[in-house]
Amino acid sequence: MEKEHNYIPEEAKWKRLVFNIIFKSDTKLGLLFDLILLVLILLSTFIVMMESVSIFDAKLHSLFVFLEIIITIFFTIEYALRIITIRNKKSYIFSFFGIIDFLAILPFYLSLFIPVTKYFLILRMLRMLRVFRIFNLMDFMNDGYLIVRALKHSSRKIYIFLLFLVIFCVIVGSLMFMVEGHREGFESIPQSIYWAVVTITTVGYGDVSPVTPLGKFLSILLMLSGYSIIAVPTGIVTAEMRNKRQNLEKICGRCGNDDVDDDARYCKICGEKLI
Amino acid sequence: MEKEHNYIPEEAKWKRLVFNIIFKSDTKLGLLFDLILLVLILLSTFIVMMESVSIFDAKLHSLFVFLEIIITIFFTIEYALRIITIRNKKSYIFSFFGIIDFLAILPFYLSLFIPVTKYFLILRMLRMLRVFRIFNLMDFMNDGYLIVRALKHSSRKIYIFLLFLVIFCVIVGSLMFMVEGHREGFESIPQSIYWAVVTITTVGYGDVSPVTPLGKFLSILLMLSGYSIIAVPTGIVTAEMRNKRQNLEKICGRCGNDDVDDDARYCKICGEKLI
Amino acid sequence: MEKEHNYIPEEAKWKRLVFNIIFKSDTKLGLLFDLILLVLILLSTFIVMMESVSIFDAKLHSLFVFLEIIITIFFTIEYALRIITIRNKKSYIFSFFGIIDFLAILPFYLSLFIPVTKYFLILRMLRMLRVFRIFNLMDFMNDGYLIVRALKHSSRKIYIFLLFLVIFCVIVGSLMFMVEGHREGFESIPQSIYWAVVTITTVGYGDVSPVTPLGKFLSILLMLSGYSIIAVPTGIVTAEMRNKRQNLEKICGRCGNDDVDDDARYCKICGEKLI
Amino acid sequence: MEKEHNYIPEEAKWKRLVFNIIFKSDTKLGLLFDLILLVLILLSTFIVMMESVSIFDAKLHSLFVFLEIIITIFFTIEYALRIITIRNKKSYIFSFFGIIDFLAILPFYLSLFIPVTKYFLILRMLRMLRVFRIFNLMDFMNDGYLIVRALKHSSRKIYIFLLFLVIFCVIVGSLMFMVEGHREGFESIPQSIYWAVVTITTVGYGDVSPVTPLGKFLSILLMLSGYSIIAVPTGIVTAEMRNKRQNLEKICGRCGNDDVDDDARYCKICGEKLI
Repeated sequence: MEKEHNYIPEEAKWKRLVFNIIFKSDTKLGLLFDLILLVLILLSTFIVMMESVSIFDAKLHSLFVFLEIIITIFFTIEYALRIITIRNKKSYIFSFFGIIDFLAILPFYLSLFIPVTKYFLILRMLRMLRVFRIFNLMDFMNDGYLIVRALKHSSRKIYIFLLFLVIFCVIVGSLMFMVEGHREGFESIPQSIYWAVVTITTVGYGDVSPVTPLGKFLSILLMLSGYSIIAVPTGIVTAEMRNKRQNLEKICGRCGNDDVDDDARYCKICGEKLI
Repeated sequence: MEKEHNYIPEEAKWKRLVFNIIFKSDTKLGLLFDLILLVLILLSTFIVMMESVSIFDAKLHSLFVFLEIIITIFFTIEYALRIITIRNKKSYIFSFFGIIDFLAILPFYLSLFIPVTKYFLILRMLRMLRVFRIFNLMDFMNDGYLIVRALKHSSRKIYIFLLFLVIFCVIVGSLMFMVEGHREGFESIPQSIYWAVVTITTVGYGDVSPVTPLGKFLSILLMLSGYSIIAVPTGIVTAEMRNKRQNLEKICGRCGNDDVDDDARYCKICGEKLI
Repeated sequence: MEKEHNYIPEEAKWKRLVFNIIFKSDTKLGLLFDLILLVLILLSTFIVMMESVSIFDAKLHSLFVFLEIIITIFFTIEYALRIITIRNKKSYIFSFFGIIDFLAILPFYLSLFIPVTKYFLILRMLRMLRVFRIFNLMDFMNDGYLIVRALKHSSRKIYIFLLFLVIFCVIVGSLMFMVEGHREGFESIPQSIYWAVVTITTVGYGDVSPVTPLGKFLSILLMLSGYSIIAVPTGIVTAEMRNKRQNLEKICGRCGNDDVDDDARYCKICGEKLI
Repeated sequence: MEKEHNYIPEEAKWKRLVFNIIFKSDTKLGLLFDLILLVLILLSTFIVMMESVSIFDAKLHSLFVFLEIIITIFFTIEYALRIITIRNKKSYIFSFFGIIDFLAILPFYLSLFIPVTKYFLILRMLRMLRVFRIFNLMDFMNDGYLIVRALKHSSRKIYIFLLFLVIFCVIVGSLMFMVEGHREGFESIPQSIYWAVVTITTVGYGDVSPVTPLGKFLSILLMLSGYSIIAVPTGIVTAEMRNKRQNLEKICGRCGNDDVDDDARYCKICGEKLI
């Protein structure tokens, strides 16, 4: 994709340089750029948080706005450079990180035309996802991929588990709605389902808790269920994680042993040299 | 069971067609029927929930009743068709799903004769279990069976674990009843047992919490126990899940033993060499 | 131990009969006796619980006392028969179950001489431990032993884990005592340690919760720690449980493979016939 | 390091004796010294705790101060003897335990010159870390090292997991800040993030809980996430712990590979036949 051409025009040269700086991190300048970007992303997120605290916003509102403008200008230039220097512009713009990069600057420009609402906040917070790009570049995310892949492979089982759980909570919630008879916190079935989820996941806010003896007895059953059922997602992911560690690896051509570790050079069952 | 006959009378033909539509999902019509059924089940469950919210019920009560009648008529027709088209009527009617199908329409017809009580709600909510039939047809439940089987195989150990846990909670509850001396939330042994379960399962509503220093010290011990003991169900299910996973993989060609480990080269039952 | 003698005196005969009934459960009478005992133990525990509920006690106090007397007389006769019919009296009396059997009847006879205090309750609740004897006889506890043994084998690691945890909680508690500065719930270091344990075990009663921003930040760190650290006991017990499943079993005499399942008749590695 | 010299001056003799007593525990005196030290450390920690309880401090302040002086004098003498008797003084003084030993006596001497503040407390509590030195000597910590090593090996994955978790909580927190619209407990994004962490870790204090239906619905999603996500750290540590366990068992005699599985018959690194 990035093959060297014999003839490189002047324009292509700076494009390649800028491309290497902002898309890669194997040069000193590239690493420096990534670090600056990381600091700006974290600073930007921090500003959004502080803006939401009324005492800070009252004192430092103009500073926050000023920093927000500076950072947005930097992000805009960066976004423009990304589009200019990359060859396959389309695939970048509609890639996951391309959209995040665009959303990171959108709220500011939107706010010039329409009044700022609190719903802009969440768009501004999505900027934070950009840190993954940087960690990605810095070769820090291999273990992260392993986790995500293990989750993805067990996601089907986890969805079914959650389906069971939700249906269980709906039925238990309806039961408690009947038992606790319209008491505070159990005014409706959705409220009771909320309580059932709070209980079975062992969160237990305590904003809603059973009052009648029968309600308490049912709660005990539900809590014991939740305490035992938690083993299921754990079992699924643990089994999958062990699996992934092996699946990625090789297989012995002689004895068919597929329990081959990353660093194995000989099969542990038959002694065959691997690859 | 569904063998083709050379001579199919007219009546048998539409029976087979309807049977294929409502009991199977491998035809387009069958799939469409399942989707409509799924939507109606979810809608019906949603209506029951909304009915329980007084502000919605006040405004939309007649709409809810109207929709309930429509859905019940659909379910009744469906139930009748199921009985008419299936050959082994008895085994369907008394099967798990046959009973659920019947209970799904029962509350409505009962309400024509006896006054509606809130206990009808739970019967109406049981309809939701019908979604499993649809997911079942859609070949979505293989992983679900795996989970259920792992739970079933470890259920004996989990029951014993729960027995230990309950006896432990009863004794700790009695102890706390003595220690916290009739304080609020510890008025009786059952109340104190409720607190012990809330604590050991790490739910921690906070509606009952210890007040005396000795009570707090005992709570600390109980919480640390609960935090460590949670490993037990997890360990049981994880071990069982790893076990079950292997079952699916290899099978001995001679004796049919399906409990073959990943790294086995000989069948452990009959000594046959495996592949 | 129970060898047949050629000459059995009359007295020895009924002793053997009674011994078989109360100590074993392989005869019909023995099983019946165990079931009656189980019912009486559960009834007795239930009575203690109900006695502690003031509204029930007010109404049914004399019934409770009457039932307690009946049950205690039964337990006393049973205890006497156990001592009379067993050969090795000493080892029974000082065995775990012998002491529990004695403690089960002690509170009643003590109450004839000294005034009843609430501390008798816990002694009466200990009766419940007798159910284990019955489950034990009924061959229900094999899986229970597996769990207990897995816990025992990993207990050393769990103790060290708890030691780490306690020291961590003490230090975090002291830190929060300084940070939250004598606020409600953080009046002293022991109180703050109580809060730290409530938080790290994810119980979270909410009777004590941080108020200052710094306190909340520290809480976030502590909660995330607790959420990650819970993996440790789980990992220990899971590893041990997998281990125990294998350790109990045989070992292949030819290839030394020690991963032999319960039901294996041939070694899965080398195909050697096992015993 | 501790080689015997032919000529040992008088001074060196008592130095060696003291060294063996305070740095080792294989002599009777050494063991006695360790036990005394353990008791004093625990007593000292206990005193700091009790001092923080105002009712105890009011009554027993002078006793606490007296004991603190005695213990500090003991610790000071011990610290001096450690420096005097060890050969490599520098490496001791700047070792982890050397610093802890110094910090254990620092607060007392500081308090002679500057007024005592509550921040001294935490320094005094750090003394408790000294118990690890004693357990270490007593050969009690092998299992502890196993746990620590398993945690260290999986720490990279756990950090990434926590990074995901924190970013997830920040985004969910911002969302809830918008949804619950400045209600109590959701006054700012940091507050809402605090709530998100309390919820996802299943702590659930209940000091902040959602009020609006949409907020409750989002909470349900968050709780179910937290309940499923907890499987990830557990899976990581369990896999790692299983791994570590194997390391200790076999070792390849040829290449020294210590990562040998239970069922391996050949070394996976060099192909050497194992035993």
